[in-house]
Amino acid sequence: MFSALGIKKAIEYRELIDVLMGDKIFADIVLRGGNVINVLTRESYMGDVAIKGKYILMVGDASDLIGSDTTVIDVAGKYISPGFIDSHMHFESSMLTITEFSRLSIPSGTTTLVADPHEIGNALGPIGMKAMAEEASVVPNHVHLVVPALTPDCPSLETAGYDITSKDMEEILNYPNVIGIGELQGFSNARHVYRNTPEIITDLVASTIYARSIGKIVDGNAPELFGNELAAHIIATGGKCSCHETTTKEECVEKLRQGVYVFMREGSTQKNMAECIRAVTEEGLESRRCILATDDMVAEDLEKLGHMNEIVRRTIAQGVDPIEVIQMVTINPATYFGLEDRGCLAPAKLADIVIINDLTNMTVEGVFLEGRLAAIQGKLLLDIPQYTYPDAVKQSVKRKPISEEDLAIEADGTKATIRCIELIPDQNLSECLEFELNVQKGLVQPDIHRDILYIACVERYGRNGNIGKAFVQGFGLKTGAFAESVAHDTHNIIVVGTNLKDMTAAVNHVIEMGGGIAVTKNGRVMNDMRLPVGGLITDELSGHEVSEKIAALEHSVKSELGGKVHAPFMHLSFLALSTSPKWKITDKGLIDVNNFTVLPAVKQ
Amino acid sequence: MFSALGIKKAIEYRELIDVLMGDKIFADIVLRGGNVINVLTRESYMGDVAIKGKYILMVGDASDLIGSDTTVIDVAGKYISPGFIDSHMHFESSMLTITEFSRLSIPSGTTTLVADPHEIGNALGPIGMKAMAEEASVVPNHVHLVVPALTPDCPSLETAGYDITSKDMEEILNYPNVIGIGELQGFSNARHVYRNTPEIITDLVASTIYARSIGKIVDGNAPELFGNELAAHIIATGGKCSCHETTTKEECVEKLRQGVYVFMREGSTQKNMAECIRAVTEEGLESRRCILATDDMVAEDLEKLGHMNEIVRRTIAQGVDPIEVIQMVTINPATYFGLEDRGCLAPAKLADIVIINDLTNMTVEGVFLEGRLAAIQGKLLLDIPQYTYPDAVKQSVKRKPISEEDLAIEADGTKATIRCIELIPDQNLSECLEFELNVQKGLVQPDIHRDILYIACVERYGRNGNIGKAFVQGFGLKTGAFAESVAHDTHNIIVVGTNLKDMTAAVNHVIEMGGGIAVTKNGRVMNDMRLPVGGLITDELSGHEVSEKIAALEHSVKSELGGKVHAPFMHLSFLALSTSPKWKITDKGLIDVNNFTVLPAVKQ
Repeated sequence: MFSALGIKKAIEYRELIDVLMGDKIFADIVLRGGNVINVLTRESYMGDVAIKGKYILMVGDASDLIGSDTTVIDVAGKYISPGFIDSHMHFESSMLTITEFSRLSIPSGTTTLVADPHEIGNALGPIGMKAMAEEASVVPNHVHLVVPALTPDCPSLETAGYDITSKDMEEILNYPNVIGIGELQGFSNARHVYRNTPEIITDLVASTIYARSIGKIVDGNAPELFGNELAAHIIATGGKCSCHETTTKEECVEKLRQGVYVFMREGSTQKNMAECIRAVTEEGLESRRCILATDDMVAEDLEKLGHMNEIVRRTIAQGVDPIEVIQMVTINPATYFGLEDRGCLAPAKLADIVIINDLTNMTVEGVFLEGRLAAIQGKLLLDIPQYTYPDAVKQSVKRKPISEEDLAIEADGTKATIRCIELIPDQNLSECLEFELNVQKGLVQPDIHRDILYIACVERYGRNGNIGKAFVQGFGLKTGAFAESVAHDTHNIIVVGTNLKDMTAAVNHVIEMGGGIAVTKNGRVMNDMRLPVGGLITDELSGHEVSEKIAALEHSVKSELGGKVHAPFMHLSFLALSTSPKWKITDKGLIDVNNFTVLPAVKQ
Repeated sequence: MFSALGIKKAIEYRELIDVLMGDKIFADIVLRGGNVINVLTRESYMGDVAIKGKYILMVGDASDLIGSDTTVIDVAGKYISPGFIDSHMHFESSMLTITEFSRLSIPSGTTTLVADPHEIGNALGPIGMKAMAEEASVVPNHVHLVVPALTPDCPSLETAGYDITSKDMEEILNYPNVIGIGELQGFSNARHVYRNTPEIITDLVASTIYARSIGKIVDGNAPELFGNELAAHIIATGGKCSCHETTTKEECVEKLRQGVYVFMREGSTQKNMAECIRAVTEEGLESRRCILATDDMVAEDLEKLGHMNEIVRRTIAQGVDPIEVIQMVTINPATYFGLEDRGCLAPAKLADIVIINDLTNMTVEGVFLEGRLAAIQGKLLLDIPQYTYPDAVKQSVKRKPISEEDLAIEADGTKATIRCIELIPDQNLSECLEFELNVQKGLVQPDIHRDILYIACVERYGRNGNIGKAFVQGFGLKTGAFAESVAHDTHNIIVVGTNLKDMTAAVNHVIEMGGGIAVTKNGRVMNDMRLPVGGLITDELSGHEVSEKIAALEHSVKSELGGKVHAPFMHLSFLALSTSPKWKITDKGLIDVNNFTVLPAVKQ
């Protein structure tokens, strides 16, 4: 009847009961006289938290549980909170291993991360996600994975390294630490998927019903969906889902009313919390299904600003009750994910605890992970060894170098009307522009004065050699080019530049490195960074080193190339995201997301 | 990868998506223009609810989903609510089969019942619960079972028909419709169980850890527990539990703070809601873990007052926001039990829907069960055939007749100081009294003027022939006796009377009937009722007939015997409940619940 794990847990629980009911053994640690944050009743009050092994024994007056070997920690004047949960994030966005990300996020109070290895899934398929699941199982914090049910997001509009469908679900949903299916991209543009690729809906429903049948969750992804389309999306997830791509108050109200758990996003590039939270502050909706998540965080922000503590601070600053906000990073996500062993301070829960100095600045004094003091005053106390990925996930770039001709955009005559993507700072979304450009020797020329540059996306998995080409406005480069093997969500090589020579040099340097980032000028590489794991992550640098390296690369773009947008690599990488409106670039060309079609760069 | 059930669901969901996204098929039913009660956001607003098959398609403006075959029902001016859930109840308390109970409860809006077959489990063990699980699977409403992990509640203090322990869990937790372990009685008197029968705790923890490991829930039962004892109880349930035995505001506050889901009880005898709800109305605690439940309902109340609609009405009358109260019978219990297919009005949820005329009287206009109109204006529309139980569960009384000598209480001298249980109307709890009584020919005499009567409990399973004897005050009988094979929780035969002759006649008539109720006077049976199923339930009478029969029996007690307490059979049956303080009677004698001991009826 019992598994070995069950017997172990039964023995642990029996010991907890002996501490509480007997008089021979005592608590290991008592946090004494703090302000207990109760996310179940939405109160705070004076109390102790007693810990035995990795569990909370009780919350209240723990005087009886203090023995001669009990460590008593005076937390008077401080707040005791359950550990924070980031409910939707991609390690790949930080370019860090799980290990290095955790080193930065644990001291800020994050004890649980729910990561979607969507990027490495697109690049490498099951092998990449399995490698990440293995790393997740060795770090001291709790890392759970939600895996893609479909790669690429839009099979008719882009090429990924591996095509995940329902055939893969049985295998990947049973990797260690996998708790469900991640953002259901395939149905985020419901009307067009239904009209153009209805077989995808059948396949997604097969995957989600299977996931539900084995007790796994299914995250949604429903930007700008309302009414019947939103209902269809919810049904496609199996009837319970989240959405982390909600950008307006009206969307947030509608989704909460329809039962969606709204992950109000507040990351390094996408900042939607302030808009979404108005559903609570202005409309007065109950917030039990409101959750905070970062989606994409860069190493520098993690290091300098913090992680979920910073997102909580910003949300409190919007006028929400502090404990209601803390519910959004503790009990609300724990309930959604069915992580019943955490999310509140109560008997038998894991002793994942954050000591907070004040609820305005959300400065974290100390962090406990499963009863162990893990960090104090921002300093990590745990020894977490560096993690090196196996070679099998380090050979994701499989194409030969390109030539300038491959990137050229041809047109007849002396003038051409072209389509140009408009970058919108701090958004995944883009706008659509048209311009008239000069044509010389049959090739359309960029217009640096009007900031109309070349953009291209180069298939890198050796599957078809596609190159998609178009124009972009918003980067402000005056010279040179930059390229990267991070290009959501299929992660081909994306490049922006003022001329074909520098663009070609940048792409070829990324190919040569086996993935990474390259900045070029006058045909020479000015700066670069290797991303050997799937072309997305480095296992060679620490979080601080990545942060410095990215800063140096960004500085190169600004000072050497004249770039004007902040976080240029993050912004470029999202211009390939074919699920977020309006125009994007993939290896198949310029994508009209709202109409699910490929458009020529030059207007006919 | 997929089960047949999974494929069926995938096809159903795919069809729902086709209705929403296509233009060829339409909703089956649209409830048009009602006040939608949204238990997720705690709002109500104008809207339609569209239904296809057994599911809700969408909630909002359903104009697009109405085709020529769609049934459009105008619900303007009425409220549309998710179906109600009774989170903790015992069919045995109504003496009705699941079928007859459902006939009465469906028209009042109850669509889901979570029943603890604890009584039949005590009487018959697995065979009784399996029979009930089989009936649960044929009724049209949703009936889930939570099964006992331990019978009897206190093995050292009483005798049941079957001893359930962790050895039985693998079998009974896998019967159809079983969703978990029911009220964890064994640890409700934590201090004494720990001190006297610590092996029970080890066994309970083994059962709860196993239940959790297969995704089942574990209900708690923690009357009057606080601090360390409450924490130990919570841990024994595996860290997540309910309590339906909370009787004071302070207990309610403490339990909500410790993460317990408080089932505020409001049934036919125990009425604790008005006290418990003060944690919300006076202390302002968040109510997401507050749930309403009936525990024990008699057929007459069901028929005359209603079911969960009546409990909701009473709770609203305590000054709670009506939608907050409806949350306590919909989304709150659905979340607790993990019943993710119901509890709110949203896409893909089961179309279990209640149409309510007004939120003050909670009169139910109509009820839908899985998209079928099941009742209208209190009248059941579904054809639910009568259910007959197999013979195997109809032979639970296995003892020979008793004699008057078996019930006599002996003492020396002419006076004896005796222990007397004090019945407290409308409570499970009792008080402790001592009196001096006359002794004649070595036998202690009752004192009818002071309402000090005989009470006895006769083991009926043929296991040891025990008879426990003591005195009771509160029934007010002037003559005669009455007995019944319903005596919580072991359900031996309990009898109260003014003289040994009538008591003996009553007990022997119950034995002869194979279980039931008997009222006797002057050595003759005045009135009776057969309860053939486990000695607890009749499958021979409808709800209305049971209601009339009980009324007639109660009338006999009042008019023939002079009894003064209302619901005398219900009150008598709880005087055997050895888990609820302070003094009770079992087959082993007078039980001092708080001290976990058997006391002599005559003080030494």
